[in-house]
Amino acid sequence: MRIARFSIDGNVAFGAVEGSTAPGAEGELVLDIIKGIPFADFELSGTKVPLSKVRLLPPVLPNKVVAIGRNYAEHAAELGNEVPDAPITFFKPSTSVVGPGDPIVYPSFSQDVHHEAELAVVIGRMCREVPKERVKDVILGYTCANDVTARDVQQREKQWARAKGFDSSCPLGPWIETDLDPGDLTIQCTVNGEQRQLGRTSDMVRSIEDLVVHISEAMTLLPGDVILTGTPAGVGPLNVGDEVAVTIEGIGTLTNKVIKRG
Amino acid sequence: MRIARFSIDGNVAFGAVEGSTAPGAEGELVLDIIKGIPFADFELSGTKVPLSKVRLLPPVLPNKVVAIGRNYAEHAAELGNEVPDAPITFFKPSTSVVGPGDPIVYPSFSQDVHHEAELAVVIGRMCREVPKERVKDVILGYTCANDVTARDVQQREKQWARAKGFDSSCPLGPWIETDLDPGDLTIQCTVNGEQRQLGRTSDMVRSIEDLVVHISEAMTLLPGDVILTGTPAGVGPLNVGDEVAVTIEGIGTLTNKVIKRG
Repeated sequence: MRIARFSIDGNVAFGAVEGSTAPGAEGELVLDIIKGIPFADFELSGTKVPLSKVRLLPPVLPNKVVAIGRNYAEHAAELGNEVPDAPITFFKPSTSVVGPGDPIVYPSFSQDVHHEAELAVVIGRMCREVPKERVKDVILGYTCANDVTARDVQQREKQWARAKGFDSSCPLGPWIETDLDPGDLTIQCTVNGEQRQLGRTSDMVRSIEDLVVHISEAMTLLPGDVILTGTPAGVGPLNVGDEVAVTIEGIGTLTNKVIKRG
Repeated sequence: MRIARFSIDGNVAFGAVEGSTAPGAEGELVLDIIKGIPFADFELSGTKVPLSKVRLLPPVLPNKVVAIGRNYAEHAAELGNEVPDAPITFFKPSTSVVGPGDPIVYPSFSQDVHHEAELAVVIGRMCREVPKERVKDVILGYTCANDVTARDVQQREKQWARAKGFDSSCPLGPWIETDLDPGDLTIQCTVNGEQRQLGRTSDMVRSIEDLVVHISEAMTLLPGDVILTGTPAGVGPLNVGDEVAVTIEGIGTLTNKVIKRG
């Protein structure tokens, strides 16, 4: 099932996306409004609205986003880094999250903002110290993410809270796919339609299972928390006016435009 | 005013702490229950409960905690570090926050957990790109914090999400002092009554004003968000069974006991 979060006439709801998402057929998509929330038992209401009539929101409002650095060997190499002994683990705050179609606002304190297309894992239930074989039970589904990074600030500041935590640096969407084997999916990033990043989730250094074990060894994960699993090679600059799109096989496309601070 | 958050008979409320907090006189403290929340206009209800009858909670439930590393030169030196050109900025997640009297649970993945006594700034209103002269307007008040750190993990892992973000690694309390000049206060940390850290906020490398400007340049701060302003020299290990107390002049004492994972 594909679960979207959306607003219509000022109301916010979750809905199941129905219809084909094949390119060109998107106008036919409808949302079956969910009674309840996707983190517990829920029903479809049968009340349907066309996707074209709603505004899609970030599919979750995470309490925290835990992100992983250098989880694709080719990407580590392109920035002159080695794959670390332990996963590099950092946070993006809830204030950095925006949804599909929302602007990425170019931050005033950087001159080198990069895209980083990533597979995002959405946690479905409160958990800690999750054993590897139970990881699938705590995952609600998967969505696309862009771990937007102020590369110059990242290189200058030892910890990455500002470089990777500024407002609008965490686009998520367009929806959560709950029925998906994430083991070998194409991840692609385009800027203005031109391909910049292309990778496969099978090239992750650490698997999703290993990452959830590693993170939940230290901290409780809450329903709606998000784990970003690292970016494949091909990262590069974004400029004001660019349209950046992250497409993951079996999920869909997350598109955001880069704008100047107003 | 001193604003505490507490639970009594299963209800949670804010209250103004009245009475002397001089050592030995604490039994006389009462809480005047607040109508509303301290992040907006509020009134005191006049309904009073003795502090001894309530359970104090973390004085805020922050959406995010933004912390600063190496903001006291002597502490940077004691770990063999230099004071960085830019403030080191990192996050502690909301799941790391505990209140006064709550246990610090020794994490399974570390053998070297340290105390770090810090002055915490509590943000009172939503803000971003705060100019230096407006910083005082966005601050609700100040409380004590312990930036509990798994030192071995911090030294091993390049980003500090696990080392400084594990469950119970961010004790806050006992209450928020709203009427306080934070410019030159004594910060002290004791373990089992023995002094370990002693410093003055006047020794901060970057002032609170500079830190709020630096952080809010990148990200929106929300009411209840917390900024930890760095720790003075004297950090050291905590062991299971230890009682660690952070005392800041003009605020009070935050006490927590270290326990083994159950």
